[in-house]
Amino acid sequence: MTMVRSTLPESARRIAGDALQESLVDLLGLSLIGKQAHWNVVGPRFRSIHLQLDEVVSTARTFADQVAERAAAIGVAPDGRPETVATRFALQGPKDGWLRDTEVVRLLVEALEAAIGRLRERIEVTEEADKVTQDLLISVTYELEKQRWMFEAENWPRED
Amino acid sequence: MTMVRSTLPESARRIAGDALQESLVDLLGLSLIGKQAHWNVVGPRFRSIHLQLDEVVSTARTFADQVAERAAAIGVAPDGRPETVATRFALQGPKDGWLRDTEVVRLLVEALEAAIGRLRERIEVTEEADKVTQDLLISVTYELEKQRWMFEAENWPRED
Amino acid sequence: MTMVRSTLPESARRIAGDALQESLVDLLGLSLIGKQAHWNVVGPRFRSIHLQLDEVVSTARTFADQVAERAAAIGVAPDGRPETVATRFALQGPKDGWLRDTEVVRLLVEALEAAIGRLRERIEVTEEADKVTQDLLISVTYELEKQRWMFEAENWPRED
Amino acid sequence: MTMVRSTLPESARRIAGDALQESLVDLLGLSLIGKQAHWNVVGPRFRSIHLQLDEVVSTARTFADQVAERAAAIGVAPDGRPETVATRFALQGPKDGWLRDTEVVRLLVEALEAAIGRLRERIEVTEEADKVTQDLLISVTYELEKQRWMFEAENWPRED
Amino acid sequence: MTMVRSTLPESARRIAGDALQESLVDLLGLSLIGKQAHWNVVGPRFRSIHLQLDEVVSTARTFADQVAERAAAIGVAPDGRPETVATRFALQGPKDGWLRDTEVVRLLVEALEAAIGRLRERIEVTEEADKVTQDLLISVTYELEKQRWMFEAENWPRED
Amino acid sequence: MTMVRSTLPESARRIAGDALQESLVDLLGLSLIGKQAHWNVVGPRFRSIHLQLDEVVSTARTFADQVAERAAAIGVAPDGRPETVATRFALQGPKDGWLRDTEVVRLLVEALEAAIGRLRERIEVTEEADKVTQDLLISVTYELEKQRWMFEAENWPRED
Amino acid sequence: MTMVRSTLPESARRIAGDALQESLVDLLGLSLIGKQAHWNVVGPRFRSIHLQLDEVVSTARTFADQVAERAAAIGVAPDGRPETVATRFALQGPKDGWLRDTEVVRLLVEALEAAIGRLRERIEVTEEADKVTQDLLISVTYELEKQRWMFEAENWPRED
Amino acid sequence: MTMVRSTLPESARRIAGDALQESLVDLLGLSLIGKQAHWNVVGPRFRSIHLQLDEVVSTARTFADQVAERAAAIGVAPDGRPETVATRFALQGPKDGWLRDTEVVRLLVEALEAAIGRLRERIEVTEEADKVTQDLLISVTYELEKQRWMFEAENWPRED
Amino acid sequence: MTMVRSTLPESARRIAGDALQESLVDLLGLSLIGKQAHWNVVGPRFRSIHLQLDEVVSTARTFADQVAERAAAIGVAPDGRPETVATRFALQGPKDGWLRDTEVVRLLVEALEAAIGRLRERIEVTEEADKVTQDLLISVTYELEKQRWMFEAENWPRED
Amino acid sequence: MTMVRSTLPESARRIAGDALQESLVDLLGLSLIGKQAHWNVVGPRFRSIHLQLDEVVSTARTFADQVAERAAAIGVAPDGRPETVATRFALQGPKDGWLRDTEVVRLLVEALEAAIGRLRERIEVTEEADKVTQDLLISVTYELEKQRWMFEAENWPRED
Amino acid sequence: MTMVRSTLPESARRIAGDALQESLVDLLGLSLIGKQAHWNVVGPRFRSIHLQLDEVVSTARTFADQVAERAAAIGVAPDGRPETVATRFALQGPKDGWLRDTEVVRLLVEALEAAIGRLRERIEVTEEADKVTQDLLISVTYELEKQRWMFEAENWPRED
Amino acid sequence: MTMVRSTLPESARRIAGDALQESLVDLLGLSLIGKQAHWNVVGPRFRSIHLQLDEVVSTARTFADQVAERAAAIGVAPDGRPETVATRFALQGPKDGWLRDTEVVRLLVEALEAAIGRLRERIEVTEEADKVTQDLLISVTYELEKQRWMFEAENWPRED
Repeated sequence: MTMVRSTLPESARRIAGDALQESLVDLLGLSLIGKQAHWNVVGPRFRSIHLQLDEVVSTARTFADQVAERAAAIGVAPDGRPETVATRFALQGPKDGWLRDTEVVRLLVEALEAAIGRLRERIEVTEEADKVTQDLLISVTYELEKQRWMFEAENWPRED
Repeated sequence: MTMVRSTLPESARRIAGDALQESLVDLLGLSLIGKQAHWNVVGPRFRSIHLQLDEVVSTARTFADQVAERAAAIGVAPDGRPETVATRFALQGPKDGWLRDTEVVRLLVEALEAAIGRLRERIEVTEEADKVTQDLLISVTYELEKQRWMFEAENWPRED
Repeated sequence: MTMVRSTLPESARRIAGDALQESLVDLLGLSLIGKQAHWNVVGPRFRSIHLQLDEVVSTARTFADQVAERAAAIGVAPDGRPETVATRFALQGPKDGWLRDTEVVRLLVEALEAAIGRLRERIEVTEEADKVTQDLLISVTYELEKQRWMFEAENWPRED
Repeated sequence: MTMVRSTLPESARRIAGDALQESLVDLLGLSLIGKQAHWNVVGPRFRSIHLQLDEVVSTARTFADQVAERAAAIGVAPDGRPETVATRFALQGPKDGWLRDTEVVRLLVEALEAAIGRLRERIEVTEEADKVTQDLLISVTYELEKQRWMFEAENWPRED
Repeated sequence: MTMVRSTLPESARRIAGDALQESLVDLLGLSLIGKQAHWNVVGPRFRSIHLQLDEVVSTARTFADQVAERAAAIGVAPDGRPETVATRFALQGPKDGWLRDTEVVRLLVEALEAAIGRLRERIEVTEEADKVTQDLLISVTYELEKQRWMFEAENWPRED
Repeated sequence: MTMVRSTLPESARRIAGDALQESLVDLLGLSLIGKQAHWNVVGPRFRSIHLQLDEVVSTARTFADQVAERAAAIGVAPDGRPETVATRFALQGPKDGWLRDTEVVRLLVEALEAAIGRLRERIEVTEEADKVTQDLLISVTYELEKQRWMFEAENWPRED
Repeated sequence: MTMVRSTLPESARRIAGDALQESLVDLLGLSLIGKQAHWNVVGPRFRSIHLQLDEVVSTARTFADQVAERAAAIGVAPDGRPETVATRFALQGPKDGWLRDTEVVRLLVEALEAAIGRLRERIEVTEEADKVTQDLLISVTYELEKQRWMFEAENWPRED
Repeated sequence: MTMVRSTLPESARRIAGDALQESLVDLLGLSLIGKQAHWNVVGPRFRSIHLQLDEVVSTARTFADQVAERAAAIGVAPDGRPETVATRFALQGPKDGWLRDTEVVRLLVEALEAAIGRLRERIEVTEEADKVTQDLLISVTYELEKQRWMFEAENWPRED
Repeated sequence: MTMVRSTLPESARRIAGDALQESLVDLLGLSLIGKQAHWNVVGPRFRSIHLQLDEVVSTARTFADQVAERAAAIGVAPDGRPETVATRFALQGPKDGWLRDTEVVRLLVEALEAAIGRLRERIEVTEEADKVTQDLLISVTYELEKQRWMFEAENWPRED
Repeated sequence: MTMVRSTLPESARRIAGDALQESLVDLLGLSLIGKQAHWNVVGPRFRSIHLQLDEVVSTARTFADQVAERAAAIGVAPDGRPETVATRFALQGPKDGWLRDTEVVRLLVEALEAAIGRLRERIEVTEEADKVTQDLLISVTYELEKQRWMFEAENWPRED
Repeated sequence: MTMVRSTLPESARRIAGDALQESLVDLLGLSLIGKQAHWNVVGPRFRSIHLQLDEVVSTARTFADQVAERAAAIGVAPDGRPETVATRFALQGPKDGWLRDTEVVRLLVEALEAAIGRLRERIEVTEEADKVTQDLLISVTYELEKQRWMFEAENWPRED
Repeated sequence: MTMVRSTLPESARRIAGDALQESLVDLLGLSLIGKQAHWNVVGPRFRSIHLQLDEVVSTARTFADQVAERAAAIGVAPDGRPETVATRFALQGPKDGWLRDTEVVRLLVEALEAAIGRLRERIEVTEEADKVTQDLLISVTYELEKQRWMFEAENWPRED
């Protein structure tokens, strides 16, 4: 039984709902690996990266809330339970234990890049289905790309 | 290789470290199921419970951070990665989808009660090992017991 | 005589101007019926709904201001006079006198749903005419859909 | 059926209730025409008057809320619905479209003067009926007379 | 010996002083029973009423302070000691132990109604004696009547 | 020529205007002698009295502004020029030079008492003329009587 | 019937509950006699002590709330009704009427000392029963001992 | 060598990068001429325009930062050096020396109109290339059009 | 008898003391005539000038306090009593009654210019006597010259 | 025609005016190159330097405003237009494109050193002309020397 | 002569007093060497460490105040005079002159480690003597261990 | 080796550096003896002096930071280590143990007077060497002279 009705037609609801559910998992996952790195980073750049990671976590948490409430708003029950995040989260996270500062920077560049690539696809598919959802995903992308640039700038010289 | 040395003797470090790691998983898990219920609750008490859950989440996040940083402070690398939270989290969470307000209240009473029981055991075992860690766990228990009372008071009349 | 010139070509100005003028009436009307319900609600959920209605009113007032100033910004004189609001406002408002809390919830779900439906049409028609106006209407819709979800979640179980 | 009982005897309740209901309409009407002028004013004094009108609107909204809640507090259901405001509002509002700054100043002086005259009568009739209501109406009059003076001072030289 | 002299003639000082002393006891008593209910309320409306009671307590404490300092200001030593509050407080308070939410609402309506009735008498008797004291008692009545309305609205449907 | 018209009939305007003009002089004078004492006080209670005097000055300045703007609001041009304050101010001020703390306390008790006596007369005469003005003078009296009590309490044991 | 279940075994619940209930009475009593002295103090140190007493009252109120909510959290209904405070409060309060500043200082030193002595006993008895309750009582004692020192320092030279 | 890699394909990167670089120059230029007018304006409307110009400058600075950081985020090094602003800035600025208030208003209307026209073209060309950049340019346009309206409203009657 | 000793040699103390005493009178006088104009100004620029005058008054009051406390700090009892301000204040103030906005602007330019000329002389004479006092007078001059420019800019075109 | 008259004699006005105009160009230039480096810096110290540069920019902008308004206050029209900044700015700025963090530090040390040298000369020449202007330039130098030290400390070990 | 009496028995007072006095010296010493390093650090990590040291200083100052006031509260006069800090402070401080960033990090790790070791001993000895003092020392240790971890994490790779 | 280069010529650097280093020791010493008295003062004026001393400490700490950073800014490594403060601090501090309030007042007057006398000499010697340093020392003197006056005023009647 549908407890919260939608203001969208069913197919639009499903497309937008899927885009939001996947974004929710990515953002909750990012908030967890951001905190993991925040606690475990070591090295001469410890303080700088420790603080920067908290901005990533704060951004990820705020948008996770908005994305989940947007799903509810269009009649889709969001799923952010621990088991869902663990099984559906597709970004590469840190290994167990202490993490060198250089590793953390590289890890964040890659995780953010992957998240951004997935978000850009969802921006395309929601264009027709729901412009309001699309607009929210654009805002998420804007902030994650800003975060990615800062880690990328800090990642230089790269060892490609 | 131990990257962050401890100010505690090894056995104390291990006991306190285990207590903190387990508490970290419980608190991160609580923050995720608290948000899940925050987004999915329906029923006449929606607004009241929706807001109250955000206080649980905020409490759980703040203490997760303190507990993890306490682990790091005694030379134990904390583990709060998605897969760790999913596999180690022992409290009962909500099922997928919308949740009736009465179910949410009962669920929270039970999850908080379970977390409190586990914390009280850790307060005992850390008494000798590390009084500083014990004091932090006492603060966590104080707040979770306060939250539990409020859901319990709201859970009345109970259907035992 | 046109006192404030437009930065838009005439046809775009007229389309965007109409969309904004209609939205202005809907938002001012919503702010008035939101307050009416805020003052007259009775029943066991009085406090919860009394407070939630003030958030609707605050949202409606803020966007009414933005929408009217957007109209002025494109050279269209907005009309929010009492007689205009009364004659053009098409949403269903509350009857005179005290209102049961359950009635208020149902009334708000319906009023918000109607407002959202009308906004979604205006988002379509302004796509070509003025993307800046469209973006504002998307923001209004985002917030009203969030408010609608909360009353809808509180409206359960529904008596369809 | 009376849903909210009164702490006043019936005749006092009716006198105070009428005074409050009429004041509510005047204040809601003032808030709407204040905003209308705020958006449509043009001329060299645009910015000054644009800002001053927002103070009138803010005053009118705050007192409308207090007046309506006072009515509820004495067991009278306040009526601030769009149609009521439109049909009962007796003050002269602005015409449709852009408004010259000099016109706006004159309009506000007149609207405030009319509202003040009506309030002063209600201060008299509520003296016996309910001193608490009278005290609120005195506060409203104090603020509106202050606003009136400022527009009057700005209205000089007058073209009587 | 009179330590603080009065700016009022003796009979006016005595009338106003009595009115203030009695109001002080009512307000201190209200603040204590408000807290008692705040701590002991149980039932599905727990959170809503728990929070609302803190507003009553805050109002009662603020006015108790103003009323007592007003007494001192006119040369009357206020008496708010535990034994005085216990023996002079005439409003009906809660019984010992947990309190159902519905009982709390009814109790507050009655306690506030009784306090208001007593205040209205004092407004009459201080009219001649001291208009400054009267004005303070009018403010107290305004706030308590507002609080009473909110509990009354929540008390519906009543079981008269 | 009258530049700001009044909302009061002429005789009411004159009575209220006189009461306000005289109060303005008293309040401006109080603010000046309060500061004079604030700067020149010496003795073991220096800090306590130095701080308390700033509260008197702050109160006097705030009310001087309200009283003068009230005069303007009823069409009476207020006069707070240095020469007016000097010639019309009837309260006893401090002598030139340093002031003992005990002298300052006695001086303030007397100045406040005189100001209060004059205000109480004006409360009587404005009752018929303008209740709005009367209400403002009641507020002024309330605050000055509170200040007087504090200096009086500090003035003990008195050397009557 | 027990409405709020406890997370403590019964004997621990009773010991901790008694300690909290007695502390609640002491703290509510302190807040009342603190205010009584705040209003009635006279003498050259009036302002200093008047302000310092408000810090005592604020401390006592904050801890009364925490202590009562801790009782509820362990399933014990707290009792802070006027008659309970009056009959159970064991500390020496002020006599009726104005109070000399020196008397107030001595009175507070004694009342705080008595309260501290009783709290220290409860810290002992709750060690086994409930470390979380014990930790709260330690915090209360910390603040009251700080307050006591300040009055003691001000009480010098003592007339032992 | 590219130091910061892009998340966009090369052609999209170039189109969005050009749009951002040109907008950066316009916004930095606007912030400089806004300040120039802020300092040099004279005439009876000095204060009003002086303050309004600071809002333009604040808006221009905030968006210049966002636009430049957006360029960096997509791997394009932004260029806001003095010589670049001076040679690329295409809007009409003020002449040297004091500026009449009427001239300033006209100048701002024209400079903002020109900037808006250029922004609207960039909104079109970035639609395909990068919706995230487009969304930022829409926000910039929204604010500049609002500023333009206010100066335009103040510019009346115009001397076309 | 000198109650507060000086850290300056006697001749330096006298020179600095005189400079401060004269500045005190100028600043207190400015604060009174600034308020007088604030209350009595009429004309189309009412609001702008009304607000700007409050900045002059606020500046004058703040510096009067600093200047008087500086005098006390070097052992000179400052004199800011009403009679002193009235007899020593040498700047041209407004006439009684309502004041045209253009007159107010001209009046402020002249009063500030006079005050600045006098301050510049005192900056010279205190150079040797007391650099700390000189530095304070430089700060006063900086602010008054800024205020003067703003009125001067608003005073254009002048009718020299 | 001189629109804003000066309170300084002509030669003093010219000397102070020149010093202020040159300082304005240096500060506006610094704010632009500070932002340029803020956006383009790359390397492991990215975050630290990115943030520190915003403090330089904020300092430069605040002082540019004060310096320009000081020029206006002494009757000299300040010139901060883009073309003026570009042609008169004598400090070495960054090249186009991304900038290594080590380069940025060195660049800032040099730019600040050059600016400080020029300011110290102006402090000398304004001593006679205008002590108020001199005092402002001393404040600017104080802040820029503090900023220079921090970059210098970070620049170590230097490659002289 | 004992001026402030203790609430503790004599032997407990001496044990707790000694623990507090020694902690006071350690904390004051830490605040001084923290500031010394804050001012003298040089090297590429200057800004990060400069800011982190201010957090150490702020922590040390806050706890020094609490520790000293706790000593006073139990009747022990604390001694934090310069000569006492210099002769009793046992932690290794920095040498005179500039300090390399790597040296500062190592120095802080060692100083904090030594302070923590000493605090842990005092936590043991105060367990019986005074649990309130013990609780304060646990809080101090918690914060210093957190600070130590951050410098330790930054100290990696260590050159053991 | 000089790690931070100076913008001053060598002799100026040495003169200004010495003045700053000596002022640093005086200010750090003042902050320590201010706190010592803050904790140990007893007597009827305890609270007043306890609070006033915290303002002295706060002033001394803020200026110590500015003075030390000014030294660094001109290339002089400041020395504020415990042993330096202890051996170089020339002002008279309090004896060990509790301090009577009257003694504290006298002590502070003397310590501040001594510090001021030394600062005034340094203002002279830095005039030629570095006006920026001189300006900072003038600010320090301004605040310390203000503090001295307040203790001096409180010190009356003096026992010269």
